[in-house]
Amino acid sequence: MLRTHTCGALNISNIGEEITLSGWVQKNRDLGGMTFVDLRDRYGITQLAFNMDFNIALCTAARKLGREFVIQISGKVIERISKNKNISTGEIEIEVRELTILNKSKLPPFTIENDTDGGEEIRMKYRYLDIRRNPVQENLMLRHDVAKATRNYLDNQGFIEVETPYLIKSTPEGARDFVVPSRMNERQFYALPQSPQTFKQLLMVAGIDKYYQIVKCFRDEDLRADRQPEFTQIDCEMSFIEQEDILITFEGLIRHLLKEVKGVELNEFLRMTYDAAMQLYGTDKPDIRFDMQFIEMNELCQGKEFEVFDRAELVVAINAKGCTNYTRKQLDKLVDFVKTPQVGATGLIYCKYNEDGTSKSTVDRFFDEDARNAWAAKAGCEKGDLLLIMAGGTQKTRKALGTLRLHLAEELGLRNPEEFAPLWVLDFPLLKWDEDSERYHAMHHPFTSPKPNDIPLLDTDPAAVRANAYDLVLNGNEIGGGSIRIHDKDLQKLMFKHLGFSDKQAKEQFGFLMDAFEYGAPPHGGIAFGFDRLCAIMGGKESIRDFIAFPKNNAGRDIMIDSPSDIDEEQLKELNIRLL
Amino acid sequence: MLRTHTCGALNISNIGEEITLSGWVQKNRDLGGMTFVDLRDRYGITQLAFNMDFNIALCTAARKLGREFVIQISGKVIERISKNKNISTGEIEIEVRELTILNKSKLPPFTIENDTDGGEEIRMKYRYLDIRRNPVQENLMLRHDVAKATRNYLDNQGFIEVETPYLIKSTPEGARDFVVPSRMNERQFYALPQSPQTFKQLLMVAGIDKYYQIVKCFRDEDLRADRQPEFTQIDCEMSFIEQEDILITFEGLIRHLLKEVKGVELNEFLRMTYDAAMQLYGTDKPDIRFDMQFIEMNELCQGKEFEVFDRAELVVAINAKGCTNYTRKQLDKLVDFVKTPQVGATGLIYCKYNEDGTSKSTVDRFFDEDARNAWAAKAGCEKGDLLLIMAGGTQKTRKALGTLRLHLAEELGLRNPEEFAPLWVLDFPLLKWDEDSERYHAMHHPFTSPKPNDIPLLDTDPAAVRANAYDLVLNGNEIGGGSIRIHDKDLQKLMFKHLGFSDKQAKEQFGFLMDAFEYGAPPHGGIAFGFDRLCAIMGGKESIRDFIAFPKNNAGRDIMIDSPSDIDEEQLKELNIRLL
Repeated sequence: MLRTHTCGALNISNIGEEITLSGWVQKNRDLGGMTFVDLRDRYGITQLAFNMDFNIALCTAARKLGREFVIQISGKVIERISKNKNISTGEIEIEVRELTILNKSKLPPFTIENDTDGGEEIRMKYRYLDIRRNPVQENLMLRHDVAKATRNYLDNQGFIEVETPYLIKSTPEGARDFVVPSRMNERQFYALPQSPQTFKQLLMVAGIDKYYQIVKCFRDEDLRADRQPEFTQIDCEMSFIEQEDILITFEGLIRHLLKEVKGVELNEFLRMTYDAAMQLYGTDKPDIRFDMQFIEMNELCQGKEFEVFDRAELVVAINAKGCTNYTRKQLDKLVDFVKTPQVGATGLIYCKYNEDGTSKSTVDRFFDEDARNAWAAKAGCEKGDLLLIMAGGTQKTRKALGTLRLHLAEELGLRNPEEFAPLWVLDFPLLKWDEDSERYHAMHHPFTSPKPNDIPLLDTDPAAVRANAYDLVLNGNEIGGGSIRIHDKDLQKLMFKHLGFSDKQAKEQFGFLMDAFEYGAPPHGGIAFGFDRLCAIMGGKESIRDFIAFPKNNAGRDIMIDSPSDIDEEQLKELNIRLL
Repeated sequence: MLRTHTCGALNISNIGEEITLSGWVQKNRDLGGMTFVDLRDRYGITQLAFNMDFNIALCTAARKLGREFVIQISGKVIERISKNKNISTGEIEIEVRELTILNKSKLPPFTIENDTDGGEEIRMKYRYLDIRRNPVQENLMLRHDVAKATRNYLDNQGFIEVETPYLIKSTPEGARDFVVPSRMNERQFYALPQSPQTFKQLLMVAGIDKYYQIVKCFRDEDLRADRQPEFTQIDCEMSFIEQEDILITFEGLIRHLLKEVKGVELNEFLRMTYDAAMQLYGTDKPDIRFDMQFIEMNELCQGKEFEVFDRAELVVAINAKGCTNYTRKQLDKLVDFVKTPQVGATGLIYCKYNEDGTSKSTVDRFFDEDARNAWAAKAGCEKGDLLLIMAGGTQKTRKALGTLRLHLAEELGLRNPEEFAPLWVLDFPLLKWDEDSERYHAMHHPFTSPKPNDIPLLDTDPAAVRANAYDLVLNGNEIGGGSIRIHDKDLQKLMFKHLGFSDKQAKEQFGFLMDAFEYGAPPHGGIAFGFDRLCAIMGGKESIRDFIAFPKNNAGRDIMIDSPSDIDEEQLKELNIRLL
C-alpha cells in the first residue's frame, strides 16, 4: 500500500503519528519560509507543511510541485496553528519528511475545483479530470448509494436479481433498435435490448415470482436534450399480484431510497388518474410540490362575445398566487414565453386582482367587474393574485398551460430540489393514435393489459380503453412506469391484432412469448424506473448526464474516446456487410 | 395479492388458518374418494386435499387439473395423516374450499422434475419451463447470492460501483469485437466492450480510488464448449496499491463468498509462480485439491539407450498413489487416452510398484530393478503405487501430463466439488509469441506492467520478461486474473512498440488513455473475476451454461427467441450498410 491513511482520515487524535499519504496536489502555497501543499484524494484534503529551515532540499522540491502532480509523502501529524473547522482534517497538518513524485501532470485544461472554469465540451473530452472534481464524484457516489439501497430493499422483499441477455432480437415495435451483426450466423443480426420486457415476463412464466435487475437499455433515437442512447433501468416484475401490490411495494422502495440516501421521510403517495392529471395539470407527470391547479372556465368565459373564448374548445386558467404585482414587462415576457415554439400558444389573457379590491384584465372590454369577480370566485383568486387564462383546442391548450405553470413555478422558486413530492398516475389509456402510421400504438407497450371492463371498447372506441398501467411521478418527472401484463394468449393475440400486427408478424416477433403463455403463465405485472433520472432528481439536479460516469453527447458520441469510429475493411468483410 | 402465503410457508403452526395459495400443479393423484394435488411455487410445495364426500363438484374439477396448470385455491390448513418429514410443509395439507384456474397449460415438452426427461436442446428452447425445475432455479438463486455477497464485501471495503459504457470503440487488439453500426454517425461503428479495462483505468486517473462493477462483457470468438458470446465479470481496480494489496483484498472476497454462500471456511491461499505451476502441474491453473505433482526424471531416465527418453527434452512423471492394481485394460485405456487429439501425446510409459515389493515397467528391457527403485525413490513411490512417465518436448509433454493428471484424478474421485482449494499463480510472462502473426502478443493485455527489473530484457529476451500479473485459480479453473498496470506514458508507449503498434495506431486506438497518463495517473492495478465460472464452481458444476438464465448455444444462437435473425431492408438502409 502506498499510504497508511487516506487524505480524509487524519485528525487531532492522530497527532504525533508517523504516516504516509498519497494523492494529488490540489494547491501549492509558497510563503517564503514555509510551503504548504494541499494533498487531495477521494476522501478529503490534508495539508502538508514544508519548512525551509528544517529541510531546504525538500522544501525546494515541494515548491516545484505542479497542480495535479501525484505524490507520496511521509511525515508526522502535527497540530495546525491556524485551524480550518470546516473540514475533518482541518486541525492538523503533516510535517513532511519524505516526498516522492509518483507521476507528473501537465497543466489541466480546466481547474479541478468545485466551480471549474471548464465548459461542457472540454470537461467531457477530459472526463477523467472532470470526475476528479467533488461535485461529479459526489454524483457518482450518490448513484452508488442509490443502487445499493435499491438492492437492499428488493433483496429484503424476496426479489431475485436475474441477468437477462444483451444480445437479443430486433423488433420493429417501439423505438429503433441498435443492432449487432452476427459473424457466425451470416447475414443475421442481434439487437440490444430497449428493455428486458419480454425476458422478465418469461421469468414470471418460469416461476421466478419476484425479479429485479439494474440493467442497461439501449434506444437508437434522435437524441433530444438529456437523452442517452444507453441508459440504466431498475427493472422489476412480480407474479400473483394485482396493481395495488405493485403500488405498495414500490412506494416502499422510493420511501426507502429517500430515507437511506437523503434522510428524507416521504409523506403519503398521492394517486390520481391519467384523466385527472391531464385536466388539472395538463400533463401526465404533474409536479405537485406546488398547487396552481387548472380551473376550467368555459361556463364563465363563453358567450360574452369575446371570440377567442367563444370558439375555443377549452378555456382554462391558473391562479398565480401573489403575482398581481408582476410588472408590465414581466407580463409581456410571460406572453412572449407562451408564444415560443416550445409552448406554441397564440396568446395569454390575464387578470390582476389588486390589493385594493379592484381587478384589471386584458379583456375588460368583454368582461366587467362582476364577470371578473365570478372568475375570482371560481379560481379562488384573492387580493394580490394573478389569473392566467388560455383558450383553444383542449389537448394543445392544456399542454401549453402546463408548460406555463412549470415556468411560473420555476420563476417563483416553488420547485425546491430538496423537497420530494411523489404521485402515482393511474388508469392510463391503453392506446394512442399515431398520426404518421394512421393506426393505434400501445401507449406503454403491447403487453399491457386493458382493464377487463373496457375490453369490449377495443372494437368500438379504442381510445377510451383504459389500461392497468401506472406511472410514478416525482417532482414533475416520470421516474417509473409499469403495468399489469397480459398473461393470456388469446388476449395477447387480440392486442396484437388491434395494434395492426398480422398473425405472421406477431408470431415471428413474439411467438416465443405467446408460446410461453400456453404453458401456465401466472398473472403478473411490474415496473421499471429510469435509474439515471432517479439519481438526478435525488441529487437535486436537472441533467442526467451529470450522474453518468461517461455520458455521450447529443450526437451520440463519446468525445473522450472518440467513438463511434471507423472500423477495418477486414472486420466488415467478416461480418458480411458493406458500407453504402 | 392472489395469495396469503407462498407454497413453502405453511406448517403445523398454521393449523386451522384460512389461507389462499397460488401456484402450479406439480402432481395430481386421484385416490377415488380423495384427490391430492401438489401445488408448487418458487418457495416450495403444499399438498391440497379434495374430498368427494365433502364437495363433489370441486373434487371433480380438481381431478381435471393438468400438470403445470396455474391455480388459486382457498381453504383451511389441516394436519396430514401421513406426514412427509423431508419438507417444511410436510405435516400439513389444505382442505380446499375454492378453486380458480388462473391459466391452463398444454402438456410441457419435458417433465418439470429435478431429473427431467428433456434433452439439452429442448430445454433451451423452452428455457422458461426449464427454469421452473428446482436445480436450475437454485443455480439462479446461488448466482443472486454470490452477486449480493460480492457487493456487500466490496461496499464494506470502500469500493464504489461505477457503470462504464457499453457502446464503446473497436480495437483490433485482443479478441474480436462485436460492433454496432451508428445511424447518427454515418459509416461509423461502436463496439461492445470485451471488458471495461480502459474505462476502469480512467476511473483510477479520475481519482475514484476503488472501483468495482458486475458487468456484461462481449467477445465474438468461435465458441468452444462452455464459452458464451456475452458473459459476466466482477471487475475491480484500486489505486495507490501494490500487488500484495490486491492479493489480500481479493483473497478476502473469495473467502467471504465461500463463507457467506456455502458456509465453507477456506484454508490459506497458496501461492506459486507461473514457472513453478508449469513445472509441477503442466498448467497455469493447477487443481491442487489433490497432489500428484510432476517429477522431472531426465537424470534418472536418460543415457540408458532407451531412445524415446534419450532424445526427449523432458522426461517427467506422476505418481498415481495406490493404482498399481490397475488392470491391463485400464492401463491400455490410459495409453489410448493420452493418444487422443485432445491430449496429443505419442505414448505413455508406466511402472507398477507391486505390493510384494517387486516392480514392473513397460521398459524393463532398458531399466532394471535398481533403476526402477531409483525412480521410486525420486518420485516417492511406495508399494501399491503406479508411476506414469511421459517424454518429449518440454511444453507439449507438460501439457499432456497435466491433462492425464486431471483425467486420473477424475477417475479416482479426487476432484470433490464440495472442496475448495484456491491458489494464486504469480509472475506470469509479460509476452507470448504468436505463431500466426509472428510477433509477441500481450499475455494478459497491453496495459500490464512488466516487473521493473525485467524491463531491459524487452530488447534482448522478450519472452523472459515477467509481469506484475496474477491469476486466482480455484479447483483447476482460472476464476480471476489481473495485474498492476502501467501508469506512465513512456512505458506504455514502449509496450505498444514491443507489441508491434505504430505510433499512429497506438494514438488512434488508445490515445485517450495515453493522454490521461499525462495528467497525473496514480499507480494502480486490479483484477477481474469470471462471474459465470465462479458461480458454476461454487455450485459444484462444470458448465457455466447452467448458471445463466438465458444462455446461447455453441453457434451463438438463442434458440428460445430464435436470435440472431434477419432485419428489415429499411433498418439496414438507415444504418448505411448492405449485406454482402
